[in-house]
Amino acid sequence: MPTLRTESQSASSLEVSDLKETWRILDPEERIEAFVELERAEAEEFFLDLPARDQADLLMAMSPPQRRSWIRLLPPDDAADAIQAADEAARDALLDLLDGPTRAEVQALLAYAEDDAGGLMNPRYARVRPDVSIDEAISYLRKQARDKTENFYYVYVIDPDQKLLGVVSLRDLFTAQPDKKVRDILAGAVVVAHENMDQEELSRLFAEHDLQAIPVVDAEGRMKGIVTVDDIVDVIQEEATEDIQKIGGTAALEAPYLETGFSSLLKKRVGWLAVLFVGEMLTASAMGRFEHEIARAVVLSLFIPLIISSGGNAGSQASTLVIRAMALGEGSLGDWWRVVRREVFQGGAIGAILGGIGFVRVVLWEWIFHSYGSHSVLVGVTIFASVLGVVTFGTVAGAGLPLALRRLGLDPASASAPFVATFVDVTGIVIYFSVASLVLRGTLL
Amino acid sequence: MPTLRTESQSASSLEVSDLKETWRILDPEERIEAFVELERAEAEEFFLDLPARDQADLLMAMSPPQRRSWIRLLPPDDAADAIQAADEAARDALLDLLDGPTRAEVQALLAYAEDDAGGLMNPRYARVRPDVSIDEAISYLRKQARDKTENFYYVYVIDPDQKLLGVVSLRDLFTAQPDKKVRDILAGAVVVAHENMDQEELSRLFAEHDLQAIPVVDAEGRMKGIVTVDDIVDVIQEEATEDIQKIGGTAALEAPYLETGFSSLLKKRVGWLAVLFVGEMLTASAMGRFEHEIARAVVLSLFIPLIISSGGNAGSQASTLVIRAMALGEGSLGDWWRVVRREVFQGGAIGAILGGIGFVRVVLWEWIFHSYGSHSVLVGVTIFASVLGVVTFGTVAGAGLPLALRRLGLDPASASAPFVATFVDVTGIVIYFSVASLVLRGTLL
Repeated sequence: MPTLRTESQSASSLEVSDLKETWRILDPEERIEAFVELERAEAEEFFLDLPARDQADLLMAMSPPQRRSWIRLLPPDDAADAIQAADEAARDALLDLLDGPTRAEVQALLAYAEDDAGGLMNPRYARVRPDVSIDEAISYLRKQARDKTENFYYVYVIDPDQKLLGVVSLRDLFTAQPDKKVRDILAGAVVVAHENMDQEELSRLFAEHDLQAIPVVDAEGRMKGIVTVDDIVDVIQEEATEDIQKIGGTAALEAPYLETGFSSLLKKRVGWLAVLFVGEMLTASAMGRFEHEIARAVVLSLFIPLIISSGGNAGSQASTLVIRAMALGEGSLGDWWRVVRREVFQGGAIGAILGGIGFVRVVLWEWIFHSYGSHSVLVGVTIFASVLGVVTFGTVAGAGLPLALRRLGLDPASASAPFVATFVDVTGIVIYFSVASLVLRGTLL
Repeated sequence: MPTLRTESQSASSLEVSDLKETWRILDPEERIEAFVELERAEAEEFFLDLPARDQADLLMAMSPPQRRSWIRLLPPDDAADAIQAADEAARDALLDLLDGPTRAEVQALLAYAEDDAGGLMNPRYARVRPDVSIDEAISYLRKQARDKTENFYYVYVIDPDQKLLGVVSLRDLFTAQPDKKVRDILAGAVVVAHENMDQEELSRLFAEHDLQAIPVVDAEGRMKGIVTVDDIVDVIQEEATEDIQKIGGTAALEAPYLETGFSSLLKKRVGWLAVLFVGEMLTASAMGRFEHEIARAVVLSLFIPLIISSGGNAGSQASTLVIRAMALGEGSLGDWWRVVRREVFQGGAIGAILGGIGFVRVVLWEWIFHSYGSHSVLVGVTIFASVLGVVTFGTVAGAGLPLALRRLGLDPASASAPFVATFVDVTGIVIYFSVASLVLRGTLL
C-alpha cells in the first residue's frame, strides 16, 4: 500500500501497514494482541477500515469498557453492520453500549434487510430548511459538521414533515450569492432510492448517474438516510464475486476464499457438484440406449467427448455473456427474448465453423494414418452435422437458461457454466447418435 | 429510474427519463434528433451521464459551433475519454475546440494509458498552501469552487514545488478554530496512487480505505491530479465484466453485449472455442489408444461423459474461486501455492463423495435392471477410483492454472471454465482407462 508520510515515522513498535499485511493470517488472539499495540489514532483509522466481521470479532475480544469506547467510534450504519456480524447472543449487549439516540438509529437500521438500500444507508445526513439564507445554511452546516454528520457535501432540503424537497451541494452553497434563499438554488429533480430497493439496483443507479450519495426515502417520500458511493464500491465487488462464484458452480462463499474453513468450503462446493454428477448420469442412460450402435462401430465412441464438450463450451460461453449483461441492467426481458433468436444464428455459425474443423480432422487423419476405415467421409459428415446441431442447441440453451431462471424469479447466475455443460451433454449424446443412425445406416450401422 | 420531481413537470415534449429508456435502441440520427429536443438544462445533465463513446458520437453529429459549446461542458478527464472514444481522424479537431489551458490538461491526460491512475485522474483539484489560516483557506476554496474545480471536498496541501504535503477535508476546515493554520490540522499520512498504477489495483485501494478521492503523484511525489470514487465504480464494473467474460471463454467484448454487432460478437466467441475444439480432439486420439478395450467392454464407454465431466466441473469451480480471490487481492503468490496443497485435499474429498455416488449408482442399477453384468461390482470400483482420481486432478489443475498464468505474467482469468474442462477431459480419459485396465484385467478386459 503506497502511503505518503509527511511527518516523522510513528514511534510505535508496530506499523499499521505491517499489521494490514499480516492481518489475514493472524488468529483471533494474535489479532487483538497486535491491535492494542497500535497508537490510538492509528488504531482508530485501522479499526474503521476493517470489514464488519473483523470489527465484531475485535469488539468481542475487548474488555467491556474498551468495547464501549470502540463501538461508539462507528457511525450508525457501520455499527449496525458490526452488530449484525456478531454472534446472535452478543447483539443485545453490544446495542446497549451505544448512547440512546444512536441506539435508536441502529435499531431502525437493523430492521432492514442487509442488502436493501435501507440496510446500507446512514441515517445521519446534512439537512436544511428551504427558507433560510445561503449564509445561514453554511453556518448551520458548520455546526452539523461538528456533530458527527459523516457526509455533509450534499445538503438535503426537508420540510417539517421530513419530506424531501430537493438537494443542494455544498458547492452550490459556496458559489451562490450569500443573501439568496436555499429554495432559490434547489435542484429541481433528485435521484432517490426507495428504502427497499435491492443493492444491485442501487449500485446501477450510482454507476449511471456518477453521484457521491443518493438519498433514501420511504413510500411517502419521507427522507430516511443517505447511501454514499464508498459503501457501494464494496457492494459492487460483492455482487460480482457472488455472480462469478455461481457461474463457476459454487454456492456464494460469504467470506474470502482464504478465510473459509476446509469443511465449510467443501460443503459449499460439493453440493452443486453432486447434483450435476447425478444429472450427468443421464449420459450413461442415454448411451445405454445406443450400446448396440457403439458395439458395431466403436469408432463412433471416440468422438463422444469432442462432440458433447463443443456444445458445453458454446453453452457456457453464451450463458456467461447473458448473465453478465443482465446483471449490468442491459436491456429488458423483451430485448432478451429477441437475443435468443440472435443466438440461434450465432450458434449455427459457430457450429458450422467447428463442425468444419472436425470434418477436416477426420478426413485428414484417414488420409495420413488410415484411422477410420473406408467410410471416413461419412464419419466426417456425421461429425460435422452433429457438432452443428449440438453447438446450436448448446448456445441457445445457454442463452435461454438465465432468462428462464429470471422469468421464474430465480437468480440468472445460477445457470452456471457447469450446469449448462451438463444439461447440454445429455442432449448432445442423443443428437450425435441420432445423426449417426441417419447418416451411417446401411454402411457402418 | 426513481426520480423525485419537486417542481412542476417540465414542459418540453420529450422527458429525459423516456430518452434514457429508449436510448440504446435508437440509431445515431435518431439519437441526435431526440437529444436536441431536450431543454438545455436537462440535456446537459443527460449528456454528462452518457458513456464516453456516446458523448463522442453525439459531438460528431453536431454542427461545429454546438460541438464547441458541448465539449467545453466536460471536465478534463471526461473530455479526454470522449476524445479517445472518437475516430482517430477527428481527435485533433476536437482538441482544438477546447480553451487553451484545458487543451493542455487534456493532452497531458491523453498521454497516459486509459486504464492507469493517470488516465483516470482529474487534473483539477482544490489546493492550498500550508501556512494560510483556516478562514483564509475556506474563502480561497469558495473561489476555487466557482472556478470549475469539480471536487473540492478534499483539499490538498501543496508546497511551491507541487510536492504533496498532506490533505485536509473540508469538514476538518469547517470544524477547526478559524485562526489556526492549515499546517496544524494536516493529516499525517495520506493514501496516494502512483500515476502508472493499474486501475484494478487502484480500485482495491478505494475498496480498502473507503475514500472519496485519492491523489495521484509522480515518482518525485509531485501532485498530478485526483481520482474520485465515482469514476472507480465504472472501473470495478468493467473489470468484473472482463473477468466474467474470460471465465466464460470469450474475449472481453469492449462494448455492451446488446450493442455488439453480429460478426464482431461471432469473432470474439469463435476464436477461443475453435482452440478448445482442436484441443479437445486429443480426446479422440486418447480414446483411439483404448479402442480395443472399448470393443471388448462397451459398458466402459457408457461412463466416459460422466467421468470426464466430473473432473471438468470440479476444475471449473476451483479455477473460478481462485481467479476471483486473486482479482480481489486476497493473499500473495506464496499464500496461493499453499492453497494448491489444500486443493489436493478438497479435490480428494469431493472426488470420494462423487465416486461413492457413482459406485452406488452402478451397483443399484445392476440390482434393479441387471444393466452391467456379473462384474458390476468391479465396474463400480472402477468408477469410484476413476472419479476420485479425475476430480482430484481436475481440482488441483483448476486451482493451479490461474497461478501458473500469473507466474508467467498472463491474466489469471484466461484459465476459463471451458479451458480447464478441456484440459481435464483429455487427462480424464487416460486416468479412466488406466484405472479400468488395472481393476478389470482378467475379468472384463
